[in-house]
Amino acid sequence: MKFIATPVKGMNDFLPQDMKLRQHVLRLIRDTYATYGFDEIETPSMEHIENLTGKVGGENEKLIFKVMKRGRELEKGLATGEIADSGMRYDLTVPLCRFYAKNRNDLPTPLKALQIGNVWRADNPQKGRFRQFTQCDIDIIGDGSIMAEIELIAATSGMLTRIFSEVGVSEFTVHINDRRILKAMAASAGFTPEQYDDVFITLDKMDKIGLDGVKEQLREHGYAEEVVEKYVSMFDAAATDPAASAKASCSDFCEKVCADTLDPSVAAGMDTILDSVRKMIASGVHLEFDPTLVRGMSYYTGTIFEISIDGYNFSIAGGGRYDEMIGRFSNQSAPACGFSIGFERIITILRDLNWQEPGTAAKRMAFLVDERIPAEKLTAVFEKATALRGAGNIVTVQPLKKNAKFQVETLEKNGYTEIHKVYADTQL
Amino acid sequence: MKFIATPVKGMNDFLPQDMKLRQHVLRLIRDTYATYGFDEIETPSMEHIENLTGKVGGENEKLIFKVMKRGRELEKGLATGEIADSGMRYDLTVPLCRFYAKNRNDLPTPLKALQIGNVWRADNPQKGRFRQFTQCDIDIIGDGSIMAEIELIAATSGMLTRIFSEVGVSEFTVHINDRRILKAMAASAGFTPEQYDDVFITLDKMDKIGLDGVKEQLREHGYAEEVVEKYVSMFDAAATDPAASAKASCSDFCEKVCADTLDPSVAAGMDTILDSVRKMIASGVHLEFDPTLVRGMSYYTGTIFEISIDGYNFSIAGGGRYDEMIGRFSNQSAPACGFSIGFERIITILRDLNWQEPGTAAKRMAFLVDERIPAEKLTAVFEKATALRGAGNIVTVQPLKKNAKFQVETLEKNGYTEIHKVYADTQL
Repeated sequence: MKFIATPVKGMNDFLPQDMKLRQHVLRLIRDTYATYGFDEIETPSMEHIENLTGKVGGENEKLIFKVMKRGRELEKGLATGEIADSGMRYDLTVPLCRFYAKNRNDLPTPLKALQIGNVWRADNPQKGRFRQFTQCDIDIIGDGSIMAEIELIAATSGMLTRIFSEVGVSEFTVHINDRRILKAMAASAGFTPEQYDDVFITLDKMDKIGLDGVKEQLREHGYAEEVVEKYVSMFDAAATDPAASAKASCSDFCEKVCADTLDPSVAAGMDTILDSVRKMIASGVHLEFDPTLVRGMSYYTGTIFEISIDGYNFSIAGGGRYDEMIGRFSNQSAPACGFSIGFERIITILRDLNWQEPGTAAKRMAFLVDERIPAEKLTAVFEKATALRGAGNIVTVQPLKKNAKFQVETLEKNGYTEIHKVYADTQL
Repeated sequence: MKFIATPVKGMNDFLPQDMKLRQHVLRLIRDTYATYGFDEIETPSMEHIENLTGKVGGENEKLIFKVMKRGRELEKGLATGEIADSGMRYDLTVPLCRFYAKNRNDLPTPLKALQIGNVWRADNPQKGRFRQFTQCDIDIIGDGSIMAEIELIAATSGMLTRIFSEVGVSEFTVHINDRRILKAMAASAGFTPEQYDDVFITLDKMDKIGLDGVKEQLREHGYAEEVVEKYVSMFDAAATDPAASAKASCSDFCEKVCADTLDPSVAAGMDTILDSVRKMIASGVHLEFDPTLVRGMSYYTGTIFEISIDGYNFSIAGGGRYDEMIGRFSNQSAPACGFSIGFERIITILRDLNWQEPGTAAKRMAFLVDERIPAEKLTAVFEKATALRGAGNIVTVQPLKKNAKFQVETLEKNGYTEIHKVYADTQL
């Protein structure tokens, strides 16, 4: 019987040159977050199907890879109709909430967690969209103060600055907003709470259709002219001059547009986040209060944020506060705030920018050995290799191929700089 | 709706203290094999169901977690009866063979591959046996010479020596044998090729039932008295005095027991492996030719080997040569030899031996901040934290809890040595 050599649809094999980059980035991520006191955790790749289909995953719930019951469990399932009792996780947030509910008594408070792992989505595969991919989340659970936001944004900015310095990129923009400000602005304009979701979905298209487009679409949706007018005018200054919103404090802005509906401590907290983070990040990172930032996930309850590389038209990290998720997994709620890093996007950009493995002190040496040499000589080659490895070098020993030229070229391409052919009469 | 807080049956959450050990060991594994010129690769967690049920996985094929078809694929499946088109991999060997068949033109020859990843088995969970666990395999594909065996055994011995030095363990035993010697001995004793499998299954019980037990069981299976006598006598010297077999050369041994059926180059190759590896490994690692070593997987074609920690009654790494597997995935065959590391066993032993995180130069510092301090003061705390992180320290900033005593104790348990409480009047 012959087997199938291609991977399962939408999933990737990673070759040595791919893995060098991926592992290098993972190590920088781990090392940077460790400096900020984040501890790594891990959860299983599978979750109870009930947890995955509980209406917190949005569109992703349609994309679950379901795992079948087994043996007698399966027979029971066939009778009752349900033949899957678990599924592959589609994100790291649902597993994190379950993890915290289960283990909270054995965890520090606040928990500063780094989670790196694969997730699976039965999506239509296309360029840059896969059915198995790596996610990387950092979360702070049990800290309801703005210290959580400050630590998350500063740490993630620091991580990105460190990684992208290797390809000469140093300019990032962090957009930050707050769901409570979004809602207050909509309320002050005259929208009712039931209308918020639709209004925010439209607002979210700002970067594609512009403020005029938003205005037109809101009109088309049948909202009152004066409500739409008032709402759009709030964003006017910010949209026509982004720099203006960056310089003005969030408190000033909110005082103007939604003083009647917003608790002023929300805007004051935002200003402290802005002030603190700006003192923590590299000069190339621009932190901007952005009242047009929406973000999709419905579970966010407070601050929301996104990071993009200047010149790229998509975010490479995003997150926010979700104080009500943990409570759905246990009787005890807990405040939570997190950042999800677009690991695969970062890898793609680094490769596009021709990332090269940073040089190390280790020399890469290869011994290509004629297989006909006497046994004692072969043993002597390995003794020599051992000594060289002990001295910190990377050494490989392998048979000399008939096509030695191609073998040497391949090794050189893989960074081997000293290549020795060993025959019976070679002096070691 | 409430969710389920426990993980899926047989699968584990890993807490920060678990992950410190796991990540530390993974880093040592990666760093050690890199020194020997191994490159990391990665394959998807899912494989085509055809590849998983192709009779190369032995008993593990019964334990596949099957993944259901999706959408229209599922509808088609319901009609034809098959509702799963992929499954979770139960080992890393099947994916490696598929990977090599698919990508061989883009890979160096020989490929020296390190693969680390989770595998899934719907086994009955029990102490130390899980439904999701990490495997770690190293393989050399495209090298049919004994250089592959020498590199694999030396590298793995070096890796184990390095890891276990942290808990004061330095004594290991590497058992090595060759399927061709096993077969030659059985043939010389008078067994027929159809009987080999049954004979080896019995021989494999040697460490549990002893040589007398093996003899009795072979008799019970109905083999001729003189064949059984002759076979058992071959092992006599080795079994009663393990040191004898360690000292004698493999060639001497085979000359005595199976000269009539064995190509002498097999035993000579074994001797060169023994001589070379012994010059490469630490003094605590004992490499022994062991004619009783069987190993279960039917796909092995040549050398087989296992490593155990002296004093522990099970192997922590095992492998061998499997020259015929790759050919089942493509028209082109390739010699292959590999080692599978019992990652979870290693973790269990290290924890049992009370492994402690090695000390680092980085200080762990915590600022516990009274939430009522003015915004400027909070910003100043974060500025200070940033400077300390820049100087190489691990720093966390978090709100001061009401139960500050417990908070401090938890941090101290996690290795924080400098803990500062910050109030409005605290001098930074």
